[in-house]
Amino acid sequence: MPHTIAEIARALGLSAEGALDLTITHAAEPASAGPDALAMATTPKYAAGLAQGQARAAMVWAGADWRAMGLQAAIFAPRPRWAMAGICEMLDPGYDFGGGVHPQAFIHPSAEIGADAQIGPFTSIGPRTKIGPGARIAANVTVAEDVVIGADVILHAGARIGARCVIGDRYIGQPNSVVGGCGFSFVTPEPSGAEDVRATLSGERLLRAQKWHRIQSLGAVRIGDDVELGANSSIDRGTIRDTVIGSGTKIDSVCQIGHNVQMGEDCMMCGMAGVAGSARIGNRVLLAGKVAVNDNIFIGDDVIVGGASRVYTNVPAGRTVLGDPATKLETQLEIRKVLRRLPRLSAHVAALQEAVFGKQSVKDKD
Amino acid sequence: MPHTIAEIARALGLSAEGALDLTITHAAEPASAGPDALAMATTPKYAAGLAQGQARAAMVWAGADWRAMGLQAAIFAPRPRWAMAGICEMLDPGYDFGGGVHPQAFIHPSAEIGADAQIGPFTSIGPRTKIGPGARIAANVTVAEDVVIGADVILHAGARIGARCVIGDRYIGQPNSVVGGCGFSFVTPEPSGAEDVRATLSGERLLRAQKWHRIQSLGAVRIGDDVELGANSSIDRGTIRDTVIGSGTKIDSVCQIGHNVQMGEDCMMCGMAGVAGSARIGNRVLLAGKVAVNDNIFIGDDVIVGGASRVYTNVPAGRTVLGDPATKLETQLEIRKVLRRLPRLSAHVAALQEAVFGKQSVKDKD
Amino acid sequence: MPHTIAEIARALGLSAEGALDLTITHAAEPASAGPDALAMATTPKYAAGLAQGQARAAMVWAGADWRAMGLQAAIFAPRPRWAMAGICEMLDPGYDFGGGVHPQAFIHPSAEIGADAQIGPFTSIGPRTKIGPGARIAANVTVAEDVVIGADVILHAGARIGARCVIGDRYIGQPNSVVGGCGFSFVTPEPSGAEDVRATLSGERLLRAQKWHRIQSLGAVRIGDDVELGANSSIDRGTIRDTVIGSGTKIDSVCQIGHNVQMGEDCMMCGMAGVAGSARIGNRVLLAGKVAVNDNIFIGDDVIVGGASRVYTNVPAGRTVLGDPATKLETQLEIRKVLRRLPRLSAHVAALQEAVFGKQSVKDKD
Repeated sequence: MPHTIAEIARALGLSAEGALDLTITHAAEPASAGPDALAMATTPKYAAGLAQGQARAAMVWAGADWRAMGLQAAIFAPRPRWAMAGICEMLDPGYDFGGGVHPQAFIHPSAEIGADAQIGPFTSIGPRTKIGPGARIAANVTVAEDVVIGADVILHAGARIGARCVIGDRYIGQPNSVVGGCGFSFVTPEPSGAEDVRATLSGERLLRAQKWHRIQSLGAVRIGDDVELGANSSIDRGTIRDTVIGSGTKIDSVCQIGHNVQMGEDCMMCGMAGVAGSARIGNRVLLAGKVAVNDNIFIGDDVIVGGASRVYTNVPAGRTVLGDPATKLETQLEIRKVLRRLPRLSAHVAALQEAVFGKQSVKDKD
Repeated sequence: MPHTIAEIARALGLSAEGALDLTITHAAEPASAGPDALAMATTPKYAAGLAQGQARAAMVWAGADWRAMGLQAAIFAPRPRWAMAGICEMLDPGYDFGGGVHPQAFIHPSAEIGADAQIGPFTSIGPRTKIGPGARIAANVTVAEDVVIGADVILHAGARIGARCVIGDRYIGQPNSVVGGCGFSFVTPEPSGAEDVRATLSGERLLRAQKWHRIQSLGAVRIGDDVELGANSSIDRGTIRDTVIGSGTKIDSVCQIGHNVQMGEDCMMCGMAGVAGSARIGNRVLLAGKVAVNDNIFIGDDVIVGGASRVYTNVPAGRTVLGDPATKLETQLEIRKVLRRLPRLSAHVAALQEAVFGKQSVKDKD
Repeated sequence: MPHTIAEIARALGLSAEGALDLTITHAAEPASAGPDALAMATTPKYAAGLAQGQARAAMVWAGADWRAMGLQAAIFAPRPRWAMAGICEMLDPGYDFGGGVHPQAFIHPSAEIGADAQIGPFTSIGPRTKIGPGARIAANVTVAEDVVIGADVILHAGARIGARCVIGDRYIGQPNSVVGGCGFSFVTPEPSGAEDVRATLSGERLLRAQKWHRIQSLGAVRIGDDVELGANSSIDRGTIRDTVIGSGTKIDSVCQIGHNVQMGEDCMMCGMAGVAGSARIGNRVLLAGKVAVNDNIFIGDDVIVGGASRVYTNVPAGRTVLGDPATKLETQLEIRKVLRRLPRLSAHVAALQEAVFGKQSVKDKD
């Protein structure tokens, strides 16, 4: 899709200078950009790569001296990632969903599919399921029975939507994502060892042989508008109520959300993060990669949980936490400073013990 | 499915009081319960929600003053989760597997499918595979060749069973769960860097370029009765012997079990937990969410591994462990107490150094 | 497949002794080996199991006294795992891909499939996609449009390859593995809370409601030769450039590789490890199980990251790191030694404070 610099600048609401009628066909990193590419040189660091490439036009930072970079035209991006979103949307080649309902798809006679649906081969749509207009559904997808899905959704190959789930508009299910696996909820007839430990915080307990009985999930999963679920990620259904994901929330690949979780709006959950059963997550919460959130706890609005942190207890709104166990960010940074020199700290204590209590003390007391 | 309070109490072996002929159609949380719901008010905390809802009947704790809660009838649940399992089973609407073998399923002529099987569209059953009676298999499932599966299993959409795997009765494979991916087992012609490090516990080593050669998995996966495998979870096949999962073991979503693992009976493995290759896990072991178990180690019977712990070494039977690296629960709780005030501890040591060795000492020694 | 001891030894380039014409049909662990099995008794520890089994022949370590073990023949393996790779390849029964293109597969008329392809039922190959000769593709696989795949690849059930991805020869995609999910890349119109925290390393910040806008992935995934991707693992596509995986790199089950990642050759990434977006990983890097690599960092050649470590910052070539946060191996082992006795260290400091500053000091200062 060729575009002139002028067209792009206009579409993105950005200013441009130079040969505004120069045409580009795609975006590229500066070092690998050919003459028809718009180089993404949005910081001086990235712009350094222009010399190795052949770009004639680039997206640059506000005030950049684009002529000195050997360019013929430049678009100014004061907020580079925001401009990147615009340019990527404009140049997106999209995916090929086949243009209609494939003859080898299976759509149950009682299902209702909205206008302009594209549905790939070997995709199965179950009884009484309703899908809104504009659906783009790839091959090998399963939507089970009694599901309600909004308008303009995208379901990539291998995406699964379980029975009775309700999903809003513009949902994107990445390949092999799962909505509506059963909740992981079991109980033993008599209290189990784990229950003892939770009650007593003690590792000493009686052993007993017991079988796990399943607590069936009567609930489903309810998802708002504009939600995305990453590849190989999973959201389990609720026990009595539904598991709920608020509008605007984005979930990365290989994530897991347990049964009964209530997650708010506009959250972001990065790769391999997990939220255990019955946790409640506020709005605009950011869970970085590999984060773990304990079951049954509450995370307030606007909380940021730093990379690979483990959150075992409630976090009040607005707080940034980090670590295992997670603490306030500032506390954790202090803790980590000391941790790194823990062996030295230990040696200092030994030296102090020797000085204060005498040579024997270190050996005696440790 | 409407039921009277009397019917439910009788089926669950519980006592009830009040309007025993009152009819409910489903279970609900107290705050959102309508007049036809059985509210699950099994603790005073949950019961507080009754005022916001319209429930006429509830499941309550032993001795609860249900009349004071404005109810017309109550069922008493001395062990609420156990009663919950009963009520959820009774009210479970189940899943729609289509009632028979779908014409668009592929069943290899040499496969043997037991009586009363339900098999969805685009599901493929491979050569010589035997599946017991009562199977409920959704759409888009793959069961490869030479598999043996017991009676009354459920395979949800996208579940995969690899060649030569053997699975007992009542297995539940959640959506996109995988049994029988190849073991992750590779070797370099000469010792690799990782082998050096394991041998010497030193990070200093010679670098050398080598290719990884695959060790084919000759083994399969053998699974007992009453096992469940969660959405997007994976169990790899063994190298020479089979990977084994004992009867009654339940595995949550997004879990991984490596090649050759021998896991016992009635274990529970929560979301995003992983067991590395050749580890042996006893019976009734509980691995909480995000737990990591090292390869080639042994975890004894009845061990409980707390949330997000990393277990690098053997754990004797009956122990509860926590942390990274995992230690006995009590030890870890003590460690975490100190960790949280580590910066203060460090400051105390600095003050002691100054008092004992003089001002210069802190700067000198650190 | 029966083989004589002589045949096996010759094929593997190993020496053998005893009844060289003795025939074995499969490999087994010593304790469970029948009379027709080759027992893998490659260490004295494994050989101890021979007494419980019925093996007549075994693979043993160099110099082992095989006659004293009651064997009739032995093959000597000076590097057991290397010999294991050979024997497993020789005895591998392989998988049944059906011998040709299944009539219930869908291959788009514009796709080009190389000679000798085997393609299972309900597998979909998209428009303009090219697959090299010798492909073995199971049931329920999806290869999207404009994909290029080399020779002799194996795609197991449920494997997904997204649009425009390029994959080399001998790729193995395990069940439900995903190549080419969209990158997880979003931006808010104004700086988000997370950006503030990164900029200031402070948890204090203004709250504001904003929506996440998607940055479309224009890039795809480019994979070299001899790469393997594990069950339920995922590699996301790049934003402007492709996500790249070098030749010879092996990735285990339930792993995640974010958008734009550049991973070198002959790396090994073990179960549940994750690499966040835009990280660069050198050649021959080993990421052990459950490892987390932060976004935008650089890991040099030959780095080894120990089990469950979290790497937040660059790691120079050749280093072995461990822990959370990861440090040099030796440092971490020292840190862990002190960690384990941290409560005692704390008590020592309290005793010192009392001795030096008086009884009141401990209470006052803590």
